Amino acid sequence: MKMWDGRFTKPSDALMESFNNSLPFDKALIEEDIAGSVAWANALERVGVFTPGERDHVVGWLKSILNDYNDGRIEFVPSDEDIHMAVERLLVERAGAVGEKLHTGRSRNDQVVTDTRLHTKKILTDIAVSLTELQRAAVERAKSDLHVIIPGFTHLQQAQPVLLSHYWMSMFAVLEREKSRAAHAAESTDILPLGSGAIAGSGFPVDRDAIAAELGFSRVSANSMDMVASRDFLLETLAAFASAGICLSRYAEDLIVWSSKEFGFVELDDAWSTGSSMMPQKKNPDSLELIRGKSGRLIGNYVRLATTLKGLGLTYFKDLQEDKEPLFDSARNLQMVIKVFTHVLLTLKVREDRIRQDLDPFLLATDMADYLVRKGMPFRQAHRVIGRLVGYCVEADAPLTEVPLAKLREFSEMFGDDVTKLYSWEQAVNSRAVKGGTGRESVIAQIEAAERILASEVGQYV
Amino acid sequence: MKMWDGRFTKPSDALMESFNNSLPFDKALIEEDIAGSVAWANALERVGVFTPGERDHVVGWLKSILNDYNDGRIEFVPSDEDIHMAVERLLVERAGAVGEKLHTGRSRNDQVVTDTRLHTKKILTDIAVSLTELQRAAVERAKSDLHVIIPGFTHLQQAQPVLLSHYWMSMFAVLEREKSRAAHAAESTDILPLGSGAIAGSGFPVDRDAIAAELGFSRVSANSMDMVASRDFLLETLAAFASAGICLSRYAEDLIVWSSKEFGFVELDDAWSTGSSMMPQKKNPDSLELIRGKSGRLIGNYVRLATTLKGLGLTYFKDLQEDKEPLFDSARNLQMVIKVFTHVLLTLKVREDRIRQDLDPFLLATDMADYLVRKGMPFRQAHRVIGRLVGYCVEADAPLTEVPLAKLREFSEMFGDDVTKLYSWEQAVNSRAVKGGTGRESVIAQIEAAERILASEVGQYV
Amino acid sequence: MKMWDGRFTKPSDALMESFNNSLPFDKALIEEDIAGSVAWANALERVGVFTPGERDHVVGWLKSILNDYNDGRIEFVPSDEDIHMAVERLLVERAGAVGEKLHTGRSRNDQVVTDTRLHTKKILTDIAVSLTELQRAAVERAKSDLHVIIPGFTHLQQAQPVLLSHYWMSMFAVLEREKSRAAHAAESTDILPLGSGAIAGSGFPVDRDAIAAELGFSRVSANSMDMVASRDFLLETLAAFASAGICLSRYAEDLIVWSSKEFGFVELDDAWSTGSSMMPQKKNPDSLELIRGKSGRLIGNYVRLATTLKGLGLTYFKDLQEDKEPLFDSARNLQMVIKVFTHVLLTLKVREDRIRQDLDPFLLATDMADYLVRKGMPFRQAHRVIGRLVGYCVEADAPLTEVPLAKLREFSEMFGDDVTKLYSWEQAVNSRAVKGGTGRESVIAQIEAAERILASEVGQYV
Amino acid sequence: MKMWDGRFTKPSDALMESFNNSLPFDKALIEEDIAGSVAWANALERVGVFTPGERDHVVGWLKSILNDYNDGRIEFVPSDEDIHMAVERLLVERAGAVGEKLHTGRSRNDQVVTDTRLHTKKILTDIAVSLTELQRAAVERAKSDLHVIIPGFTHLQQAQPVLLSHYWMSMFAVLEREKSRAAHAAESTDILPLGSGAIAGSGFPVDRDAIAAELGFSRVSANSMDMVASRDFLLETLAAFASAGICLSRYAEDLIVWSSKEFGFVELDDAWSTGSSMMPQKKNPDSLELIRGKSGRLIGNYVRLATTLKGLGLTYFKDLQEDKEPLFDSARNLQMVIKVFTHVLLTLKVREDRIRQDLDPFLLATDMADYLVRKGMPFRQAHRVIGRLVGYCVEADAPLTEVPLAKLREFSEMFGDDVTKLYSWEQAVNSRAVKGGTGRESVIAQIEAAERILASEVGQYV
Repeated sequence: MKMWDGRFTKPSDALMESFNNSLPFDKALIEEDIAGSVAWANALERVGVFTPGERDHVVGWLKSILNDYNDGRIEFVPSDEDIHMAVERLLVERAGAVGEKLHTGRSRNDQVVTDTRLHTKKILTDIAVSLTELQRAAVERAKSDLHVIIPGFTHLQQAQPVLLSHYWMSMFAVLEREKSRAAHAAESTDILPLGSGAIAGSGFPVDRDAIAAELGFSRVSANSMDMVASRDFLLETLAAFASAGICLSRYAEDLIVWSSKEFGFVELDDAWSTGSSMMPQKKNPDSLELIRGKSGRLIGNYVRLATTLKGLGLTYFKDLQEDKEPLFDSARNLQMVIKVFTHVLLTLKVREDRIRQDLDPFLLATDMADYLVRKGMPFRQAHRVIGRLVGYCVEADAPLTEVPLAKLREFSEMFGDDVTKLYSWEQAVNSRAVKGGTGRESVIAQIEAAERILASEVGQYV
Repeated sequence: MKMWDGRFTKPSDALMESFNNSLPFDKALIEEDIAGSVAWANALERVGVFTPGERDHVVGWLKSILNDYNDGRIEFVPSDEDIHMAVERLLVERAGAVGEKLHTGRSRNDQVVTDTRLHTKKILTDIAVSLTELQRAAVERAKSDLHVIIPGFTHLQQAQPVLLSHYWMSMFAVLEREKSRAAHAAESTDILPLGSGAIAGSGFPVDRDAIAAELGFSRVSANSMDMVASRDFLLETLAAFASAGICLSRYAEDLIVWSSKEFGFVELDDAWSTGSSMMPQKKNPDSLELIRGKSGRLIGNYVRLATTLKGLGLTYFKDLQEDKEPLFDSARNLQMVIKVFTHVLLTLKVREDRIRQDLDPFLLATDMADYLVRKGMPFRQAHRVIGRLVGYCVEADAPLTEVPLAKLREFSEMFGDDVTKLYSWEQAVNSRAVKGGTGRESVIAQIEAAERILASEVGQYV
Repeated sequence: MKMWDGRFTKPSDALMESFNNSLPFDKALIEEDIAGSVAWANALERVGVFTPGERDHVVGWLKSILNDYNDGRIEFVPSDEDIHMAVERLLVERAGAVGEKLHTGRSRNDQVVTDTRLHTKKILTDIAVSLTELQRAAVERAKSDLHVIIPGFTHLQQAQPVLLSHYWMSMFAVLEREKSRAAHAAESTDILPLGSGAIAGSGFPVDRDAIAAELGFSRVSANSMDMVASRDFLLETLAAFASAGICLSRYAEDLIVWSSKEFGFVELDDAWSTGSSMMPQKKNPDSLELIRGKSGRLIGNYVRLATTLKGLGLTYFKDLQEDKEPLFDSARNLQMVIKVFTHVLLTLKVREDRIRQDLDPFLLATDMADYLVRKGMPFRQAHRVIGRLVGYCVEADAPLTEVPLAKLREFSEMFGDDVTKLYSWEQAVNSRAVKGGTGRESVIAQIEAAERILASEVGQYV
Repeated sequence: MKMWDGRFTKPSDALMESFNNSLPFDKALIEEDIAGSVAWANALERVGVFTPGERDHVVGWLKSILNDYNDGRIEFVPSDEDIHMAVERLLVERAGAVGEKLHTGRSRNDQVVTDTRLHTKKILTDIAVSLTELQRAAVERAKSDLHVIIPGFTHLQQAQPVLLSHYWMSMFAVLEREKSRAAHAAESTDILPLGSGAIAGSGFPVDRDAIAAELGFSRVSANSMDMVASRDFLLETLAAFASAGICLSRYAEDLIVWSSKEFGFVELDDAWSTGSSMMPQKKNPDSLELIRGKSGRLIGNYVRLATTLKGLGLTYFKDLQEDKEPLFDSARNLQMVIKVFTHVLLTLKVREDRIRQDLDPFLLATDMADYLVRKGMPFRQAHRVIGRLVGYCVEADAPLTEVPLAKLREFSEMFGDDVTKLYSWEQAVNSRAVKGGTGRESVIAQIEAAERILASEVGQYV
C-alpha cells in the first residue's frame, strides 16, 4: 500500500517500484528531512493542526527515527519509495494516528526541495572549508619555496623565469574566485520552499518566516510555482563544482608533467603515489591523475542535470528525481579531490638542483629586448633583433648569455658592457616588480594579502 | 603491503587508498576477471610457465573464488585496491606460491581492458535483446491499433491524419538504427587486448589467437600501445546508449502530453503510474517522466568519459580508472528505461473515442490543396488558395468540411462536387499509399517487414 | 612577415595560417582592443616609454583605425593573424616607427584577456538589461491576467487551480536569480589583467591602478600567471547563459503545449508564428520552439569551453584561442532568445473561455482533503478518503463537485452542507493566501514587490 | 510575402524573421537542395504532375540557379527564410508559374532532411579520406623511424623501451576504428527521406526507389514519421567526429610534451609553429595545441544536438533547425585538425640523440623480473625482488645496469653472469615479439598489414 493510492485500482508493478524508487540515494537526506518535518510540525502547531502535546509527541518520535537511523537500527521496506515516505511510515508506526497529521498542508514537492536546499547549503560550506585548506597549503608552499626560481612556461616552452612561489600563489588567486562562486551558489540556494505546497502554496496559513528562521534559511520564497519547479540552484552548484574541478585538473597536469623524469622538478611523496603490477621500478603520480580525471565526472554531472532540465515544463515532473545523484556524486568526489590535492601539495618534494639546471638562458630574451627598449629602440624592432640573435644562438649552439659583446653588437650597436647585468635569474625575476608580477616583493605582498584573507575567513557561508 | 610496493619506503596514506580504490565498482567485473585469468593461466601453461598440474591447481582455485563470491562468501580487505589485485591476493592465499606465477607476462593495463571489453560486449548484447523486445511491443501495438486514426502533429499542431499504427512503426524503424549502433559498438569492442602487457607486449610468447578463441573475441589487437591506452570502444558504447535514451525520451514526451486530460489520447495502466502525496486525484505518468529524464544521465555519462579522455597522453594513466562507472551506470539505467517502456506500451489504453473527437477538419487542408493540384493548379497557388480558405474558416468559425461549394468556388472555381470525397479520415490516410506513408497498405507492409526482421533476430551480437 | 618571426627560418604554411587565424571572429573585439591600447599608451607615457607627443600621436592613430573600421574602411591582410596583430600593423603603417613602441612591456597574453574581459562585461550588462525587459513583460501580463484562473499542472496533469498571474510571476522570480548569476559572473570578470605581461608581470613599472580606472575595471589582478592562464570567468558566464536558456526553454515548452488545439490556452500573435510549406492550415509557434531548441546550443557552448580547459597546464596555450567563439555565439543567441520571448509574451492572446472550460472539478480534491482535516481528520486519512472518492467519480463518470452529500457521507461522515463552499475556483485560489501562494492578495503582493525591484534597477552591473 | 502565409493576417515581425532565418548557414546545402529538386521534378514528371517539357524547363532553371550561385551571381532577399524557399522563389521568378508546381507532394520536412543526409554523406566521405591520409603519414613515419627506440610511458613515467614506430602504428590502429565509426554513421545516413511529405507520406504516388537511385541513396525510408522527426544519424556523425577529435587530442598532447625543452624528443617544423608577440626566443607548437583544444568544440557540438533532441516530441519542431550548425562546424574543424596533423607528422624532426640519452636503465626492470621468472621464481616474488633492487639503486644513485653481480646476488641468488645480456635496448624491444608487441618483427608486420589496408582503400564510403 502506498500513501497516495486511494484512487488506484491496481498496485504498481514491481519493476516500476524499483525504477521509481529513490530511497537508495535520497536516504542521504534523512537528517534534513527530519529537521524539515520538525519545523513543519512546529508550524502546524502554531496554526492549530497539532496541539502542543501532539507536536511534542511527533517531534520526539521524529528525532528517535533519526537516532535509530544513525545507529543503523532502521529497516526500510520495499514500499518506502523515498526517504520522505519512509520517514512518514515510520512515524505513523511509532506515533500512531497523530503522525498522519504531519503531511497536512505540505506536499512532497515542497518537502523534497526544502531537504535538497538544506543539504546543498551544507555541501557548499564543506567544499568552501576544504578549498580554504587547499589555499592554506598553497600559501605554505609559497612561503617555504620563496627562494626557488623556475622556468615559467607558455605552450610548455620556457618563457620567463618566475618564482615557484608565484606559481603557488596563482593557485591561491584562482581559488578565491572558485570560493566566491560556491558562495554565490549558496546564496541562490538559501531560500525556504516549505509552505509552497504541491504548487499553489499551502492551504494552511503557516508562518513561513518562522520556519525559515528555524531551519536557517535567510529568505522565504516569493512564488510557490517557481519553488517546486526550479532547480537552478543545483545547476549553479554543479557548475561551481565543475569549475573548481577543472581548475585543479590544470594544476594537476602541470605537476604530473613536472614529476616526469625528463622535467624532474618535483617528486610526490610515496604516500601519495602508487606502483605498477608489472613494472617494479614504477612510481606513478596516481593521486594527481585521478584529480585530473575526475574533472570529467564533474562536467558530466553538470550536463546530466542541465539536459534533464532542458525543455521540462512547469512545475514538478518526476524527471526532477534525477537531480540528486549528480549533486551527491560531484560533492563527494570534489571533496576528495581537494583534500588529496592539499596533502599532495604539502608533502611534495621540490628538486631545486634539477630546476636550476634546467633554466635556459633563452628565458632572458625578453629582458634583452627590454634592454634595447630602454636604450631607445622601439619594442617591435628590439623583438626582431633579439629574435635574430636567438636564431644565431640556435644555429651556433651557443648559450644566449655567452655571446661575446662584439657579436651582440653585430645584431645591434646599442648593446654595451652593461648587458651582462641582465644575466642573473634573480635580476630577471625582480625586474617584474609590478603589482601581480613575479618580483620577490610582489610575491611577498601576495602572500601577506593571502594570509590576511585566510585569517579573516569565517570558514562558513551560511 | 601492496603487490607493487617493493621500491617504496612508505605506505600509502589512508585517504589515498580510499581515493584510489576502485573495488567498490570494479568488483562488477569479477566474472570477466576470472575468465581472463583462466585463459591466461592456460596460455602460460602452453609456454611452460605453468606445468599442466600447476595450471589445473590455479584454475581450480580461481573458479572457487568466483563461486564463493557468487555465494557471498568473499571478504575483501582494505589493501584490495581493485578486483584484479583482490583476486590475485585470494588466489595466492588459497593456491600458495604457485599463484604468484599468474601475473607473469601480464599487466593490469592489459588485464583491466580485457575485462572491460568482455563486460561491455555482454552489456551491449543485453541492451540489444531489450531493444528487440521493445520493438516487438511496438509491432504488437501497431497490429492491434490498426483501425485508429490520430491527428499527426508537427510543432504539436494538428498536421495530417495518420494511423496510430504508423506512429508505433516509426518507433520500430528508429530502434533498428539504435540496434545497429549498439552492434557496431560491440564490433569495436570485440578485440582481445590480453598479451599487450603494460605497454610493449608481453615478454612471453603467448598464443594470443588461442586466448581470443577461449574468451570469445573475434580479433586480436594489432598494437599493444593502442590497446592499453584507447577507450574509444567505451565512448562509442556510451554514445550508442545516449542515442537510444534520447530517442526514447522523445516518444515518452509524446505519451506524457497524450496522457494529459486535455489531449486524453492514452491512459497509462495503474501499474505504471503513481499518485501524489498531497493531491488525492492525481495519477501521474511517472514511468514515462523517468524515461525522459534519464536521457540526461546518459548524455552526462558520455560527456564524463569524453572529457576525461580529452588531451590525455598515451598510454595508461590513472585517469582511465574513471571509465567504468559511467559504463555501468548507463547500462543499468538504459536497461530499466527500455524494459519499463516496453511494459508501458503493452499496457497502454488508447482512448479511441477521444481521439476521433479531436480530429480537426483542418487536417484535410493539404488534401484540398492536392485536389486543386490534380485539377491543374500549381501547388504553390493551391497552397495560397487553401491558406486563404483556412483564414476564412478561422474568422467565420466554420469547419473546413462544412463550407458550401458556392463559398469554396469563391476561393477557386476549380472546386467541384467531388471535393466532398476528400472529407473522410480513412480516404485521407489511404491517399498516402506511397512507400513509407501512412496508407493502410503501407503500414501493413511495414508490420510484415518488421515481423520478418524480428523472426530472424538471433538476439545476440557476439 | 610576422611580428614574431625573428628566430624563424621558414614562413608558416598557408594551411597553418588559416588554422591559426582568429581574426574572422576576434575582430569583434576591436573596440576593446583599441581602448586597451589607448590605456596602455597612456601607461607607457607615464613611465617614459612614450613622450606625451608620441603618446598623442599613437592614440590619435589608434582612434582613426577604430573609426575607419566602423566605417568599413579597413582592409585586413592574410598575415593579420588576429585583431591585436592587425591593429598593431595598421598603427605602424599609419604612425610610423613610434607605433613599434606600443607593445613595450605588454604581451598578447595579457592583451587578449583584457579585451575579452572588457567585452564579457559589456555582454553581461546587455543580457541583464534584456532579462529585466522580459521580467517587465511578465509583470505586465501578471497585471492584465489577474482575473484568469488556470489549472496548475504537475506531471502535466491538472493539480490545483492557480492564477495565471501566479504563473507569470514565477518567471519573474526565477529570472531574478538568473540575473544574479549574470551579475556574479560580471564580478568575476571585473579584474584588470593588463600589466601581467606574457606570464611574469610587465618588465616596466606601469601604474596598473590607473589603467584599471581608465578602462573601468574595479580590481587589479593579484597574480600574473593566474591572469594569463585562467578562463574561469568565461566558464561562469557560459554557465549563467546556459542556466537562463534552460529556464526559458521550460516556459517555452509550456506555452508550446498550451498553444496546441487540445489545450488551446493561448494563441501566439501571427507576427511570432510561421506557417508550413505544404500544409496551408498550419500556424506554428516556431518562435517558442527555437527558444527551447537554442538551450542545447548554450549548454553545448559551456561544454565546449569546459572540455578545452580541462587538463590544460598553465599558463597560456593556444588551446585558449577556442574561448571566444562560444562566448560570442551564446551571447548573440541568448540575446535573441530573451528579446523574442519578451515580444511573444507581450503579444500573446490568452483564451480565457477555453481555459475556464478546461478546469476540472478534480482540481479541488486537495481542498476537500483539507476540509476533512479542518474537521479533525488526520491528513493522511483524509487523503485516502478523497482518493477513494475520486476513484468512485472516475468509475461513475461523475464530476467531483456534483456528488450528492449523502454519497459523500458514505466516504466520510465528516462531510456536511458546508462542503459546497469549496466548489468555487476563486475560493480555492484564495485559500492559498500564504506568502508565495496563489491567493489573489499574495499575487498582488508579488507584483508590487516586483515593480519596486524593477523601478530601482539601474540596468547596469558595472 | 511568404510562401506559406495564406492563412495569416499579419506579417512576421522583423526580429522574428531574423531569429527564424536559417539562410546564413543552410545555404551550404544549395547543391544538395538543387540535386534533390531535380530528382523530385523527375519523379513528378513520372506521375504526370509535370509534362516532360515542363520538367526540362524547371530542371534547366534549377541548374542555372546553382551555376549562378557558384559564380556569386545570386542575391538573396530578406524574405528568403532558408535555402529551400530561396531556391523556390528564384525558380518561380525564372521559370514562371510552372515553377510553382515543384513543391507538389513535397514538404520542407522531407526536403530539408534529404538535403542534410546528402550533405552528411559527403562530409563523412571527406573526413574518411583525410583520416586515411593521416594513417598514411603515420605509416610513413613508422617506416622511417624504425631504428629509433624511445622510452614508452605510462603515467608519463618511463615504463619500457619501445620502437618509436610502434607508437606511430598505434595511431594507425586506432584510426582504423575511427574510420569504421564514420563508415557506420554514413550507413545510418544513407536512407532516402524524400517522399515522406510533411509527416504522412507524399500524397502523390512517386517512385521513391527511382529517386533514391538518382540521388545515390542505397535505401528508401520505411516510415515517414520517423524520417521527418529523427536526427539520430547526425548525432552519430557528431559522436564519430568527437571520437576522432579526442583521439587526436591525445597524440597532440604527447607531441606537445615531447616538444618541450625538457623532453626534447621532437621538434616541429617552423612552418607549423608560431612565435610570441613578446618573447623573441619562443617557438610554440600552436598547431598541436589547436588540434588538442578543438576537441572541446567537437564534444560541445555533440552535446548541443543531443540536448536539443532530448525530450522533443515527434515529428518536426523548429528546434530541429538547430541541427545543421554543429554539423558544419564540426566537419570544418575536424577536417582542418586532421590535415594539419598530417602535415605536422610528416615534417616533424625526431631528435634521436636526445631520445637515446634519455633512456633510463630502470626501463629494463620488467625484463630483469622476467629473467628471474625464467630462472624459476614466481613473478610476484620477482617483482618484489626487483622492486627492492630499484629502491637500492635510487638510494645509492646507481644505474640499474651497473650494479655488480655480487650486489645483485644479495637480492637474489638466481642472478648469474647472463644477466648482462638484458642490458641492451634492442634486446629489450625485440623480446616483445608477441603479436601486437613492440618487437621489430612485430612492428614490421604491422606496417605491412597497414600498407595492404591502405592499398585497398577505395577512399569512399558510399
